Amino acid sequence: MIPRLYYVTTPLKEGEAVPLLPDRVHYLKNVLRRKIGDKVLLFNGDDGEYDAELTALDKKTGAAKILRQTRAAKAEPDLWLIFAGVKRAAQETIVQKATELGAAYIVPVKTERTVTTKVNRDRLGLIALEATEQCDRLTLPNVLETQSLEKLLADWPADRRLIFCDEAGDDPDAQWGGDKGRAAPVLDALKGDAGKTDKWAILIGPEGGFSPAEREMLRGKSFVTPVTLGPRILRADTAAIAALTLWQAALGDWRAEAVTPA
Amino acid sequence: MIPRLYYVTTPLKEGEAVPLLPDRVHYLKNVLRRKIGDKVLLFNGDDGEYDAELTALDKKTGAAKILRQTRAAKAEPDLWLIFAGVKRAAQETIVQKATELGAAYIVPVKTERTVTTKVNRDRLGLIALEATEQCDRLTLPNVLETQSLEKLLADWPADRRLIFCDEAGDDPDAQWGGDKGRAAPVLDALKGDAGKTDKWAILIGPEGGFSPAEREMLRGKSFVTPVTLGPRILRADTAAIAALTLWQAALGDWRAEAVTPA
Repeated sequence: MIPRLYYVTTPLKEGEAVPLLPDRVHYLKNVLRRKIGDKVLLFNGDDGEYDAELTALDKKTGAAKILRQTRAAKAEPDLWLIFAGVKRAAQETIVQKATELGAAYIVPVKTERTVTTKVNRDRLGLIALEATEQCDRLTLPNVLETQSLEKLLADWPADRRLIFCDEAGDDPDAQWGGDKGRAAPVLDALKGDAGKTDKWAILIGPEGGFSPAEREMLRGKSFVTPVTLGPRILRADTAAIAALTLWQAALGDWRAEAVTPA
Repeated sequence: MIPRLYYVTTPLKEGEAVPLLPDRVHYLKNVLRRKIGDKVLLFNGDDGEYDAELTALDKKTGAAKILRQTRAAKAEPDLWLIFAGVKRAAQETIVQKATELGAAYIVPVKTERTVTTKVNRDRLGLIALEATEQCDRLTLPNVLETQSLEKLLADWPADRRLIFCDEAGDDPDAQWGGDKGRAAPVLDALKGDAGKTDKWAILIGPEGGFSPAEREMLRGKSFVTPVTLGPRILRADTAAIAALTLWQAALGDWRAEAVTPA
């Protein structure tokens, strides 16, 4: 298997010799046991992906010669995943899976019932990097610091649609039970939103759910589409993976139109 | 929060006094710190869910008095998840999430490129039990021993449709690249299959993918629908969660028809 490395130290171009930073040299030499002359793939979102050959692997530095482009850069879906702070293991699952499922920004938020607001961005960044290299995408998602949900919504860009996964949306006993509180099944809601914009975000609540005030605030915004994710209670990481999957399948790059452009 | 316990020791009926087994007595007394007079919910797939009151919590045995039914039993989707053996952590994620996502049977299989065939059914059964109690479903999924994929397909029931998640299905360089090897985007394929049967299964490959012989065998079966899960490479656990989600949203109990029967 040819190692695939996210590379932004210098621009990638056919025929160039590019330097390798110490941590990647260590990874190639000591973890993957690669030698001079071995192949690597170097990529980033701006330049695309390139075949390259290792030309130096010294103690701390290294270099590669770029041979030919294997994939051109191309636009990726503009999708944010916003999730209420959860425990560390669930955070890590969410970042790994959101990377595989093509999220561009991954945004932890603080809500009224959020348990954990602590986020180790270095650790989550490494998980996103590893997932990016393994899942074959060209861009690295941005993992942000924890934001306040209220502030995020107050500053919300008008042209971005927010899919609000409302775990109480199909519960007739919840606040605004019946028709007022009901949210649409997610595929119907996504189909209804198709074509409205090309900027999207998904919001997943904390394990304890959103508070009544938060539900009211969210449902009052014109850019919000409330949806439900079925009759069972999903953990926050399951809900995040489910919502990202459905968005990609209904509106993103899993569609036939995205696979075979007309 | 009222503890929710899967209960099959004796049938559940309003007014009955039912015994509690030692492990549940230990859980209620020592883990959840419950006392006589506290409420519990007891449930199973045949009888539904009931409010009950703890009437005895001795050293090894206990009892509860059943008060009233809170949910009637109802048919759940007949969906199997078949996945090629993966490492223990991914196995555990798959069983937990497949339970939340409503799989009835969870079946590990051995394929040519399967890394791990060892399955700790006791441990996976406990994970399924815990997820069942937390996610609000009535039935406990069955986690089976590892089967041979070949034998499973040879004995396949004719009326059950198999959604084959073919990770090479959108790769033009794969075996039978182009049109022969191409699999449909998953939502299109599921829509095309709607109404064909009410018995379903999903098959997820090992991290190394299915072998050419396995792909050929699968594509030769009349009960198989090959699908692709987008342009990125998904880990086996991500693929399992994604496919279960899409099935529930397109054909299962996440649909509007399932939520509000006509």
